[in-house]
This record gives sequence, structure tokens and C-alpha cells, in this order.
Amino acid sequence: MDSSQTFSPGVLSLLPLFYVGWSDSVLSPTEMEAIHGRLETMDFLTESDKAYLIRHTDPRNPPSEAVFKEWLQVLRAEAHKLPADRKQTIAQLGLDIAKAGGHIGDNDAAVLKALTAIEQELGIYTQENLDMILHQLDAGHIQSAPKSATFDPARLQAILDGKRAAMLNKTRSLLKDPFFWTGTIRDKEEHRSRILTMTRALAQQGLGALAYPKAYGGQNDMGEYAAVFSVLASHDLSLTVKFGVQFGLFGGAIARLGTDEHHRLYLPRIGATELLGCFAMTETGHGSNVKDLETTATYNPDTRTFTIHTPHEGAGKEYIGNALHGSMAVVFAQLVVNGEQHGIHALLVPYRDASGQVLPGIRVADCGYKMGLNGVDNGRIWFDHVVVPRENLLNRYGDVDDAGQYSSPIKNPNKRFFTMLGALVGGRLCVGLGAVSAAKTALHIAIQYGLKRRQFSPRDGEPETILMDYPTHQHRLIPLLVKSYAYQMALTNLGEQYAVATEDDMRKIETKAAGLKAMATWHATHSIQTCREACGGKGYLTENRIGDLKADSDIFTTFEGDNTVLLQLVAKGLLTEFRQSFHDDGFGAVMRYLGSKISNTWAEMSPFASNTSLEQLLSDDFHGEALRYREKKMLISISDRMRDYLKKRLSAYDAFLQCQMHMIALAEAYTERLVWREMGKTIQQLPESPERIMLEKIRRYYALHTIDQAKGWYLETGYLEGSVTKTIRRILHKLTQELRPEVAALVTAWGIPESSVRAEIVWGNVH
Amino acid sequence: MDSSQTFSPGVLSLLPLFYVGWSDSVLSPTEMEAIHGRLETMDFLTESDKAYLIRHTDPRNPPSEAVFKEWLQVLRAEAHKLPADRKQTIAQLGLDIAKAGGHIGDNDAAVLKALTAIEQELGIYTQENLDMILHQLDAGHIQSAPKSATFDPARLQAILDGKRAAMLNKTRSLLKDPFFWTGTIRDKEEHRSRILTMTRALAQQGLGALAYPKAYGGQNDMGEYAAVFSVLASHDLSLTVKFGVQFGLFGGAIARLGTDEHHRLYLPRIGATELLGCFAMTETGHGSNVKDLETTATYNPDTRTFTIHTPHEGAGKEYIGNALHGSMAVVFAQLVVNGEQHGIHALLVPYRDASGQVLPGIRVADCGYKMGLNGVDNGRIWFDHVVVPRENLLNRYGDVDDAGQYSSPIKNPNKRFFTMLGALVGGRLCVGLGAVSAAKTALHIAIQYGLKRRQFSPRDGEPETILMDYPTHQHRLIPLLVKSYAYQMALTNLGEQYAVATEDDMRKIETKAAGLKAMATWHATHSIQTCREACGGKGYLTENRIGDLKADSDIFTTFEGDNTVLLQLVAKGLLTEFRQSFHDDGFGAVMRYLGSKISNTWAEMSPFASNTSLEQLLSDDFHGEALRYREKKMLISISDRMRDYLKKRLSAYDAFLQCQMHMIALAEAYTERLVWREMGKTIQQLPESPERIMLEKIRRYYALHTIDQAKGWYLETGYLEGSVTKTIRRILHKLTQELRPEVAALVTAWGIPESSVRAEIVWGNVH
Repeated sequence: MDSSQTFSPGVLSLLPLFYVGWSDSVLSPTEMEAIHGRLETMDFLTESDKAYLIRHTDPRNPPSEAVFKEWLQVLRAEAHKLPADRKQTIAQLGLDIAKAGGHIGDNDAAVLKALTAIEQELGIYTQENLDMILHQLDAGHIQSAPKSATFDPARLQAILDGKRAAMLNKTRSLLKDPFFWTGTIRDKEEHRSRILTMTRALAQQGLGALAYPKAYGGQNDMGEYAAVFSVLASHDLSLTVKFGVQFGLFGGAIARLGTDEHHRLYLPRIGATELLGCFAMTETGHGSNVKDLETTATYNPDTRTFTIHTPHEGAGKEYIGNALHGSMAVVFAQLVVNGEQHGIHALLVPYRDASGQVLPGIRVADCGYKMGLNGVDNGRIWFDHVVVPRENLLNRYGDVDDAGQYSSPIKNPNKRFFTMLGALVGGRLCVGLGAVSAAKTALHIAIQYGLKRRQFSPRDGEPETILMDYPTHQHRLIPLLVKSYAYQMALTNLGEQYAVATEDDMRKIETKAAGLKAMATWHATHSIQTCREACGGKGYLTENRIGDLKADSDIFTTFEGDNTVLLQLVAKGLLTEFRQSFHDDGFGAVMRYLGSKISNTWAEMSPFASNTSLEQLLSDDFHGEALRYREKKMLISISDRMRDYLKKRLSAYDAFLQCQMHMIALAEAYTERLVWREMGKTIQQLPESPERIMLEKIRRYYALHTIDQAKGWYLETGYLEGSVTKTIRRILHKLTQELRPEVAALVTAWGIPESSVRAEIVWGNVH
Repeated sequence: MDSSQTFSPGVLSLLPLFYVGWSDSVLSPTEMEAIHGRLETMDFLTESDKAYLIRHTDPRNPPSEAVFKEWLQVLRAEAHKLPADRKQTIAQLGLDIAKAGGHIGDNDAAVLKALTAIEQELGIYTQENLDMILHQLDAGHIQSAPKSATFDPARLQAILDGKRAAMLNKTRSLLKDPFFWTGTIRDKEEHRSRILTMTRALAQQGLGALAYPKAYGGQNDMGEYAAVFSVLASHDLSLTVKFGVQFGLFGGAIARLGTDEHHRLYLPRIGATELLGCFAMTETGHGSNVKDLETTATYNPDTRTFTIHTPHEGAGKEYIGNALHGSMAVVFAQLVVNGEQHGIHALLVPYRDASGQVLPGIRVADCGYKMGLNGVDNGRIWFDHVVVPRENLLNRYGDVDDAGQYSSPIKNPNKRFFTMLGALVGGRLCVGLGAVSAAKTALHIAIQYGLKRRQFSPRDGEPETILMDYPTHQHRLIPLLVKSYAYQMALTNLGEQYAVATEDDMRKIETKAAGLKAMATWHATHSIQTCREACGGKGYLTENRIGDLKADSDIFTTFEGDNTVLLQLVAKGLLTEFRQSFHDDGFGAVMRYLGSKISNTWAEMSPFASNTSLEQLLSDDFHGEALRYREKKMLISISDRMRDYLKKRLSAYDAFLQCQMHMIALAEAYTERLVWREMGKTIQQLPESPERIMLEKIRRYYALHTIDQAKGWYLETGYLEGSVTKTIRRILHKLTQELRPEVAALVTAWGIPESSVRAEIVWGNVH
């Protein structure tokens, strides 16, 4: 069959586009209309060309298998006539095939421009599509330049999902139901009501109770719960937070701070959303400083009850999620028994009756509209001498007996306080994971758009450049993509450690969770902001989702612990551990701690100072040592400073204030290294495969990017010389280029369904 | 009079608080209620104490002059008995006075805690209030430690406002009318309608037409217009943008691109909002790349008309502000006359009739909800062969004569294009100023809150620490405060240059405006984000304004030119200028350009490399040289790279792509230095005064902070050694502490009225 007899050059020019456009079997009404409009303006087509092409743009009547096969045969026959240079776009391929088949128009540039317009209209001008058709045409011989992804995104997704794959996939599928998509709701009452309905639906699926004991409707599996949470957070953050408040904070506090009777009475009803409630810790006057909360719970020996009381307006509970829908609160209050203060304890306080009326002595107010998360009902609650039975004390770590005596399994009040606060660790992990999920959705949108959108052509008549091919665009988005992989791996690992942790493990896990929560949420805030800007005006429209992701996730840097406060906790934890290791053993012990590679002269301390060999700079050894050195050097330096200040008779508090900025820097350095180490643990378990190689590359990128960002410190301390930091920047530039063809597959491997992305610029046409 | 007979110790303890609390003559109902609640719990007060104090908390019956005077006399008498140590809080002063007057309670810590609670309730625990009362008590002798501001904020405001003071103050006063405060409106139609009404009211005041010629209702004063814009932007960004679209973009395009007849016909009606219109430049397919817009305007010689046409869906006008309310558009289109393309020109296209019906052949769609600015009606517009008379071409830079011949006073099409785009410069300046205004409002809120809010006490029983006294809080907010001063000064100066610029000045002003717009809007985005976080959960509530400031200002980094694209324009401008200066004169000319201080050996190139003397590091000489060296070195380095790439036969386009990241860095370095230089120009004109000294300190801070942020570069190139960068950090730390007592006054000097701040946490009580 001579294809040039079958099809005119005009039809041939469009055939590659039609072939790719129909390859997913869908042509939306908008696409169809756009193509018709375009065809009308193409004066190089004859009327019969147009008729043929229009006939094959009917979504109700897609080309049959036979037609599709005919197209492929014709294209293959023509493709072999082509010169051997690599085609850069499908439009270019169409033009060349048409020219090989005969005469087409008088102006190649005009034809190409028209074809390119359709290519853009169909949103098919990705590297993947071009590779796909070249492959199908058996035109592999004309490929030479950049290849597409080196790995299989489905396999990589399986690695990332790990043992939670089944639950992750179940939740992803569930959320495909349009029931879980609110669209734009501006009125908070309507929004809250929709989110509540969805939360109940998740409960019906058994997802809320996953972390509770099996006896009470759960699976006793915190890891599964965290998996659900992370998928929800890619989909809808109001829903995520509502879910977290009801099942994680309210139910979780009862599970962790209460005892059997509380579990039996409440957990089944909470998991089923028969009982809605809230976690009433924060007060207007005290958020970060939980220890000095002012609400009191005073024991009344005569009636064996507690009186819950808000001593003044500013001690009211603040920002309480579920306050408007809920009817029972876990109230954190100063426990007073026989006139003696026993510090913060948690008590169950019903605050609404069955009809929804607020109970006597209690006041509930709405926090009103917020920057985001308007589907969550945050409120304020005040208690005026509200009496609850003794049994409402969540008594795992502190109880009052029949004789009215207080007792606790943890005698040290400080340790008791921190043990109870340990209940927050799960929340912090989930917030970190949720933040990364939000960042991933934003990056999915920005990267997909960056792969479609073109702007500015190199030369008149040539197609405009794809945004993702601009170095600025790559350097804005690729490090964020890498870091999202990094934080996800670290948080997932820590979640699994937490799910099986003993009480002894908890202190270390708390430090790690505090650092990761802070750094991951800041990463998310920064990433989403960058994605908004990378999508230009489109990123600002609600229809493209990024604005809501930004507004909803913004508070993640504050709740479950303000990031700056958390990083100080991390640093304090490290300093305590450090001091405990050495007491006053002095320099020798410190040096042993720093390890054998580092000695007490500068030159020997850094074996890498001036080594610019590629092998060295790409090695795990270098990365590990550089990250470790920074953390340990900062730790020693703060410890020295503290000692100096104390010698100068500064109070411990003032000494601490003097070191505050250094402590933040230390906590960041610690967390950055932690992330790198956790990535290593994940990768270590993998068999050799293209996916493992990709993750290793991501880890190298992460390490070098971290070192590059801290190069001021490395240069200032003399650990690295300028020649090395310059080489690192060059390597990063090269790694960025290497990752460029992988970005689509890297985003795909996150497995975020389109139904959770919901951005017009990804769904629809881009122009 | 023996005061201890007049007042009991209990009353005395509260008297300083009452004195300060009433000193502004207002006690809000909430404050009153809160004090009553507190008094009830103070068991160190007798019933008659309470009765007296409660009697003096009635807002309808404030203490008389006589009572107020009596309080002061009593307090003065007692204050002289006090030990000479500086009081840290008003509550502490109360306790000490009470103790000097007799016995009060058994537990000083408990009394102090109760007093501190009221101090917080009243929101009066600022340094200023404490200084005020100590001063009033003639207790200056007990002052020793930090003083309050060293300058007069009213005088500093007068300096900043400069010759625009009258217009700035007029606008500030006008906006105090509650008419200009929308409160929270969630529905976009209602919001848009309110904003439109407000815009009309501004027009009635003559503010919209300020930049237009006097003959057409204006003042021919772009500076006055920019002043109004900057005040609006502290107050309401939807109103600001609506105002800017109607008067600046729509009217401004007619003023700058049209000729007398257009001015006469339209400007008076636009300035009076009798004619509403829009600036239809951006298309869905082309935003940054304006040159390749696809809308066409084809001349019809027979009818002496133009046909305006949108060739395909993706060439529709996009994000057009005022699209829904307006009835006439300035449409940017490819002009075609006699089949010849003449590039982008602007034409007036009416698109709604008097009744508001969209005219035939035109389609208008709503862009829907956005991340922010929902009071602005952004839309899309498509034209299907719409005919307008020849006179509708804005013909200053290109016209079609009676014979149907195209002509232009600027023969070079490229130059013509850039001249027309020069019309955008005013908009860029305004966007930069507006962004800084938004940042200032957010900083006003965060700093005022940081001065009131306390969290964590150093030791049990002591008042908790004021947030602003934490180094982390200082280092987060003070650099942003400094940079807001810096950008405001630079943008104000450039605005004045623009207001009187000749065509010859324009190219340089465009480069400066592009750099400042990009850097100032990024500064605003970052500042507002930081302020949100610095206010914790309170920052997330709509009632505290920061969320809206963030959402509304976010798009400033994109509109009027995407920041990344603008910075490339800056770099290209610098490279062009550089090449024009030298052609191929080689290294010698380059060195002359770099100036005599810099020679061709490294050591001599930086006279500062290892000089850690304070005098040196604080000197303008050092700052100027360091900033200049960075800019020039980057410029030479890019120029070298480009030459190398071109030698290697890379196309100019590819060479440019290779240097893209360096170009962004160069543009940043250039703009940072520009800001520093403009600050110097402002300061130079001032007589010696505390205000000048403060501005000099701000400028030094700005310079050192900029150098510190770029220390990686300075160390890598060897321009500075680690010992120097460490010293700079220490100096910055000290400067930050020095600015700590000045922050309230520095914020006050911006003159943002409470009615424009509108944040509950600033207005109301903080707990």
C-alpha cells in the first residue's frame, strides 16, 4: 500500500497528532471544539482533508481499531523516509512526514506553527508522548538525544508505598468518588457541614478507628492510620484536619491517656463518629507553653467530682477543632487535689446535650473565618465551674483514688508532663506527612504544567520553549521535588518506628518527630509558594488548586507545636544527650565523640577541604561526613558557649536566650542529616534496580543541595574551600539536568490520582 | 498627705495599672469585664479595695481629672521610697509600691502573677508604657537599662512621606471612614460590588485622575497618584488593584499610548468612573511573551475600520481586571495593515452597551474565585471579527493615515514595541510600592503583637517573656522591618525620577523598576509569610488580617511582569550596557571599569578580605565596595561565559539559557546595591538629627544583612575571609539588639492608622 495515495500531505501532517491524541481513547468536548477551530484556519488543508479530519474528532465515535491500525501503518511507512535527526516535537514529526509524502503549503514555518498550536491544544507535547510515538513508529533509529525516565514509576511507587500499599491504594480509590470533592464552597457553615459528612463516610469505611485497639473497632495500627492521613492530605486538607481532630487528637488522647473503661465506653463511638469531640489543650493565653495552662480541674472529695474552671477570659480554650460540631472535650487542665497542684492532666468534659444545646456553665464561640481550612469548625470554649464525675479523669498517668488521694505511676511531675505530651507525637508525624502530601500535590500540578506550557521561542517560527526546559524553572522545582522524596522517606520510616515504639524509645522519637515536623512543614510552605509562582497567573486561580493548598497548609508550621519552639526542643534534647555523654570529660571525650576521622588540627579535621574530585564529591562518605561534621561542630560550639555564659554567672535561661539562634541552626543541621540517614535505610533494603539507582541519585542530590545551601558555614569554618563549593554547584547543575527527563515519572510515582489533584491546568488544555 | 492612709496596699498594687490603663481614656467593655473577673480572684484585696477598684472601671464614668491627679500624687510619693533598681514591668512596680505602703498578701509571686495577668489583659505591657509611667512618677533615677526609641516617629514619618505628605495624609484620613472597610465578604459578587462602590468614591475625591493632564480633570502628577496607591495598599488590596486597573492601566494606557482626541474623549470620564474599562494585554497563551500575542487587528481600507479577532480559544484575553464591570477595553493586538504585520498596538474596543449587555461578537467569562483579590472582577475576553473605527487605534506610536498607510515616529519595530511597553513602568513601580505597603501592615501587626504577647517565664512566678525579647523573634522580624524601609526609600525615589523622566531616561528607569518590582514583591511575600507565623494561630484568623494580606498580595510576584522574567530583563539590560562600554577592549578596560581599588591579583582585589575592625565593617566605604564588587564581578563573569559559549558555536539563545541562573543572581546583586544607593541619596539630604542617625543605622543594617546573606559568594570568591563574615554576623546580632527598643517607633513612623490595620490582636486584648 502506498500511503501517499491513501492520505494527502495535509492529512499526513496531522496524523501523528491525531494518533497520540486518541491514544488514551478520550477527546474531551473542549479539545474537539478547539481542533475544529484550528482546522478551519489551516489553509494548507483541502476541504476533503478537513472533512476527513473532522470526521475523526467525534468523541461519541472514536476511530475504530482498524482505522487506528491504518494510521500507524501509514505513519510507519512514511517515518522510514525521514532523515535521521531526532524530532523535537510531534508537530515537527507531522510536518516532516507530510513533506516526505508530498507538497504541503508554501511556508513550513506557518504549517509547523499551526500544528504546534494543536499539539498544545491537546496537551500532548510531553517528552513521554514523543518517545511513545517514535517508538511505535519503530523510529528508534532517529532517537539520539535526551531519553525519558530511566525507571518504572509504578515500581517506584510500590517502593515508596511499601507495606502500606494496600491501605494507600484503598484510600486513593475511595476518594475518586465525587462525593469527596467539595468544589469551591465559600460559606463556612456549608463547607463545615460537607466536611463533616465526608468524615462520617470515612468512619463508615473503618478508616477513623485504625489506630485504636482491635477490641474497640480498630486495627491497633498507627501506620495504617498515618497512611490514610497522608492520602487525605493530597486530596483535601479540611477533610484531613477534621479527620485528624476527631480520630487522632480526640480519640487518640482517650486511647493514650485513658484506661480500659474509657476505651470501652468511648472509642467505638468515636471511631464510628457517633460521638464527636475535641482536643481542648491550647488556651488563648498559652499555646506553646502548655505547662502554664490556666484552666483548673479541682477535685471535690465530698461528691467525688472535678470542677473544671476557666479562671479568666484569656484562659479560654482557643482554636479548638470540632468545637462547633462536637459534644465532648478532652480538656487539659491544672489538676488540684486537696489544695495541691499536680500539673496538667486531661479530663473528659461533655459540653453539648443530645439535642446539640451547649450545657450549663459552658460557653462556645466560633473562631470565624480563617486563612484556610474553612471546612474545619475551630472555636473557643470557656468553663464556669463545670462539674464532671471522677471517672472522667483520663487516668493512665495520674489518678485520684476512692480516698481522694492523688497517685501516679510517674513520680517526677516533669517526666509525667512530658510523658502525657508524648500523646502529641503521632499528631506531629501526621502533620509532617500531611504537609509533604500537600507539597507533592502542588508539585504535581506545577511540574505537569511546566511540561506543557511554552513561552518565548528561540527564533521566530520555532515552537516556544517548554517552561521545564528553562534552567530557572528546573532549579526552582527540582530541589523541591527531591526534598519531598527525602522528607517522605524520613517521615514514613519514623512513623513505622513510632508504630512499634516502647516507652524507652519515645524520647528519641519525640526529638526526631519535632525536627521533622518543623522542617517538613516549612518545606511544604516554601514549595507550595514556589509552585504558585511557577504557574504564574494560573496558579492564582482557585480552579487550579494551589491557592487552597497554600492557604490550608499554612497553619501546619504552627499547630501541633510552633516550628521555632519545636526546633529549640530538638536542640535541648541534643544538648542534654551530649552533656550526659561527657559530663566534664573535656576535649578528649569530645574528640572521641566526633570520631576518629577528625583530629584537633583544622587541616586534618576536614579531609575534604580542597578535594574537588567528582568521585569524592559524589560519594556517600563525603556526604555523611560533611553533614555529621556540621551537626557535631555546632553542638560542641553551643555547649562551649553555654558553659562560658554560665561561668559568667548568667542564669541558665539567659544563657539559653544568648544561644537561641545557634540552637535553631543546630536543630536544622541535625534534622537535615537525619533525613539523609533515613533515606539511606530505605535504599539499603532495595535490590539493585533502576528504581534504586534513581533513589540513590535523589539522595545524592539531597545531600549536595543541603551542603550547597549551607556553604557559607562550610567555607567560614574552613571545612570546605571555595574550589570545592564551586564544584558542588556545578555537579548540582548537572544532576538537575539529569533529573529533567525524569520529573514526569517522579511525580507519577507519588500516585496522586487526577481526582485528588483537581487542577484545570493539569486536566484541561493549556495554551 | 500620707498616701498609705489614702489607699490600702491592695489598691496601691493596682494603681499603676489603672493609671496606665486609663491614660488613653478608653476602657473597652471586654477589658472591663476581664478586670472584674480578675479582681474577684485576688484574695489579697479587701472587699472595700475591690469596691473602690470596680468603681473605677466603668467606661461610661471614667475617673475624673481630680481622681487621676490624686493617683499620680500618691504613686509619686510611694515611688520615691523604692529601691533604685529598674522596674521591668508595671505589675512589678505595683507590687513594690504596695509593699512600700504596707503588707500585701503572703506570697509576692502570687500577687505579681495576678497583677501581671491584668497588665496583659489590658495589653499595656510595652516598654513605652513602662517608660511613660516611670517618667510621670519622676522616677527617672530608677531607670538604667534599655531606653525606648532614640528618635521621634512623627519626625521620621515626615521624612519618609517627604513632599507627598499632604496627599498621603489626606488619603489616610479619608480611609478612616468605615465606608472603606468591607469586613469579611466571602461572596465574590457582593465583594466586587462593594469594591466598585469604593472605587467610585475615590474618584469623587479626585484621586483617580491625579496622573492625567490638568485639562482632563487631573493634576499631571504621577507622584501623587503613586502616593495614593501606596496608602490604599496598606488598607485594602482589592480596592488598590481595582483602582490601579481603572485609573492606572486602563486610563494610563490611553494617556500614554493615545493622543489628544483620545484624552479629551475618555480621560475625564475614566477619572470620574463614568466609563469603566480594562487593560486587555495578557492572553491565555501569552503572558510574559507579550510580543507573540495572537489577537489580531486588521485594517479594512474600504471602511476605514479595524477588525479585532481572537484566532483561537487559547488566544483569548486572560485575567483581565474590570472585565465584568467594564465596558471598554484597551486591546493589545498584532496590527495588520495591507497584509503587513506591524507588531503589537493598542486599540480601544467597546464591549458592553449602555445597558451592560455584552456587544455582538464578544464573549466575556469570569475567572472565578482566586486565592485572593476576590473584590476584583478578573475575566476572559474573546473577539470574533469585531469591527472598530480607525480612530480607536491608540496612535501615539503608530497610526494609519487616510490613505490606509501605516506610519510610526519610531521606525525600528523592536524599539517601538519596547517604547509602548514602557507604559507598564508606572504600574511596576506602583506594584512594588503596594507590596511594600502590604508588608508594612503585616509587620505593624506582628511587631505590635510581639510587643504584647508573652510566652514562657524564665522562672516560676516571674512574668512570661515578651515575644519580641526572644532573639529568634528579633532575627525573624527586624531584618524585614529594615528591608521594608529600604525598599520604600528606593521605590519612592525611583517614583519621583519617573514622574519627571524624559524619554532618554526611560531605559534605565525600566531596568531599575523591573529589579525593584521583583525584589520588593518577593520581600513582601516572604515578610507577610513570616508575620503570619510570628503571630502563631492568631495570625491564621481572618480577624487578624494577615491571611488576607498574604492571599491578596501573593500575585504581585507575577502580575505586571513575572519576577523571574523581569530579573532576566534587568540582567540583559546590564549586559547590553556593559558590552556597549567595552566592545572588545579586553581585560584592561574591564579593570578600569571595576575601578582603581581593584587590581588583578586576588589579595589586592579585596582590601577587606581579612580586616575585622569594627570601624571598617561599619563604614559606608566597605558596604559600597563589597556590594559593588559583587555586582561587577558577576557581570564580568557572565559576559566571559557568554563569549565562551558563542565561541563554541552555541546559538545566542542557548548561551543565554546556560547563563540563566547567573543572570538572576546578577540582577539580584544589582538591585540590592541600587537600594543601598537610593537610601544614601535620601539620607544625604537630611540635616543631622536623631532621625537621620536612625536611618543611617537602618542603612548599615541593610548593607551588612545583604552581605551576610551572600556570604557564601563572598567566601567562595575569596573577597572576604571567614573571620570577617563571622564578625559581620556578630555585628548584625548587636545591631539587632540595638534596634529592639526602636521597633515600636519604627512601625509607628509608617503612619498606618489603626483603621487601616484592622487586626483584633492589635486593637483588642491579647492574652
